Amino acid sequence: MSAVLQRVEPLNRETRASALLGGTVMPSAHFYVRNHFAVPSLDAAKWRLGVAGLVRRPLALSLQDLLNLPSRVETVTLECAGNGRSFLTPTVGGEQWGLGAVSTAEWSGVPLAEILDRAGVAPAAREVVFKGADGGEGKRFERSLTFEDLRNSEVLLAYAMNGELLSPYHGYPLRVIVPGWYGVASVKWLTEIDVIGHSFSGYFQTEKYVYEWERDGRVATEPVRHQRVRALITQPGPDQIVDAGAFAVRGFAWSGVAPIAKVEVSLNGQAWEKTRLIGEAYRHSWRPWELITRVDSPGRMTVRARAIDQAGRTQPEDQVWNRLGYGNNAIQEVAFIARRR
Amino acid sequence: MSAVLQRVEPLNRETRASALLGGTVMPSAHFYVRNHFAVPSLDAAKWRLGVAGLVRRPLALSLQDLLNLPSRVETVTLECAGNGRSFLTPTVGGEQWGLGAVSTAEWSGVPLAEILDRAGVAPAAREVVFKGADGGEGKRFERSLTFEDLRNSEVLLAYAMNGELLSPYHGYPLRVIVPGWYGVASVKWLTEIDVIGHSFSGYFQTEKYVYEWERDGRVATEPVRHQRVRALITQPGPDQIVDAGAFAVRGFAWSGVAPIAKVEVSLNGQAWEKTRLIGEAYRHSWRPWELITRVDSPGRMTVRARAIDQAGRTQPEDQVWNRLGYGNNAIQEVAFIARRR
Repeated sequence: MSAVLQRVEPLNRETRASALLGGTVMPSAHFYVRNHFAVPSLDAAKWRLGVAGLVRRPLALSLQDLLNLPSRVETVTLECAGNGRSFLTPTVGGEQWGLGAVSTAEWSGVPLAEILDRAGVAPAAREVVFKGADGGEGKRFERSLTFEDLRNSEVLLAYAMNGELLSPYHGYPLRVIVPGWYGVASVKWLTEIDVIGHSFSGYFQTEKYVYEWERDGRVATEPVRHQRVRALITQPGPDQIVDAGAFAVRGFAWSGVAPIAKVEVSLNGQAWEKTRLIGEAYRHSWRPWELITRVDSPGRMTVRARAIDQAGRTQPEDQVWNRLGYGNNAIQEVAFIARRR
Repeated sequence: MSAVLQRVEPLNRETRASALLGGTVMPSAHFYVRNHFAVPSLDAAKWRLGVAGLVRRPLALSLQDLLNLPSRVETVTLECAGNGRSFLTPTVGGEQWGLGAVSTAEWSGVPLAEILDRAGVAPAAREVVFKGADGGEGKRFERSLTFEDLRNSEVLLAYAMNGELLSPYHGYPLRVIVPGWYGVASVKWLTEIDVIGHSFSGYFQTEKYVYEWERDGRVATEPVRHQRVRALITQPGPDQIVDAGAFAVRGFAWSGVAPIAKVEVSLNGQAWEKTRLIGEAYRHSWRPWELITRVDSPGRMTVRARAIDQAGRTQPEDQVWNRLGYGNNAIQEVAFIARRR
């Protein structure tokens, strides 16, 4: 947080230039919400984070204990694995998300590694199971990560979002943030961390949140993990009327696998043009981009945008259909209208 | 709030397209903070808003009472009257604000008119005094508005900022929002509304927050009221390096008196060019603007921006010096560097 501090007591602080420049982080109240069950009502005074299983020193940490531990702030984009599902044909079940199941916030909390160090992980440990307080219909929201997953990620146990304690919708008092993964891995209302010596299989790990296709007459599955590379067009909006002449195409791009290398835009199906990446390049946040271009004749137009990450991944032209409708990162097309100025 | 609601229970909600487009509203944690005293610690369970004085039915309302009353959400820009003070020569006392003492949020609360209707204002009433819980050195933070001021404004008693209850820094549990006025009128930690039959004079009403000059050897004063018209440049940033070719100048503009009519930009002191107003035109919020232009030769450049409101007011070329350093809305100039692409 690089706000300009004028005085601590009484507190006087300017807003950050980067906040005025706008766009990377968004107000918590505008952040998308994806819940599987009713919001559990937790009494923070009684709430504890249990750390148990294959550890030498089981822990029961209060929110105050966590606030006293070393902390980190990370700007992280979360995206629901079902983002873009409503564009699939044939239609699949589940929430019919357009392209708004993605948002970015600043998360503050304790690195998971700090907690595991304190608990002392036993040699036989293979996975870490995160248990949320949310559940129903005989199910509980639980997800695991392997120790290999953990080595390649910087998992945060977050108590704050955009500088304020989490709201009930976002997991108060504590949630997991797994940067780069689809949101399902970032368990909310965390109450227990269980270190286990086998491979975890829970409803939200092995039955839901898997890509599932028929291949050669048999069902093939693959777990949902990192966010697929995607560019989102924020300007022009669908059916927006723009004046002919110079105009800007704008949006965000992200990939869970690697930083964004470039974003390209095509107007009316013409050749792809490279856009400019702007704003700050946080490792696990979407990146704003823009292309300043021209439309010279009035009429109905289309614009498409595709992102390419530093691992060389890009977006498919067509939908990525699978039975449960996850990871549909097909190139977005926006139709708009140019009028004579 | 026009978020895309997928399901109420469990709550599933996409983010708003306008939030992705970015920029009008900012995260609460980035909002500027201007406090005159230490943050008062209020117990919301015991806190009451008292409404007394020249009213037929004095009231004592709990936060729950207020939450049960008709509410309104308004996107409002607040600006400190001292914003831009650090650019004054000779230097004046007070917080040395750059141009970051301005921010915009969505405020939810009860229209003041609802409360005054319930209390029943007596015919002799002339002003409404808002008393905050903050104070020190024998002073308390108190400000008044006349009934004529109230007729021309839509004062809100706000309990939420960006969809969440106020944070302690922003006046929890209740604050005044006076759209269009400098922030000083928007009393925080409100505990009492006193309806009086005379003209109020308090330290923050008649001694501070007044424009003060010497005129003909005598001191002349004028109270700080509406935000003066101003354009803020957010892009390019100071000393930013931009590629020669097409580029965008961007920012916000606002005026407490009237909606923004136009914003003009001058590059290197050349003729003023009209920019495009973008985003939503909320009545009491800053308005984003942009100009797509070109820089063809590399080197050091300057850009200036000036706003003109629908009342015909615009910004002065030079500073507006006054003894306490308020309302300095002189045209901003940003120097940046263009390099060959």
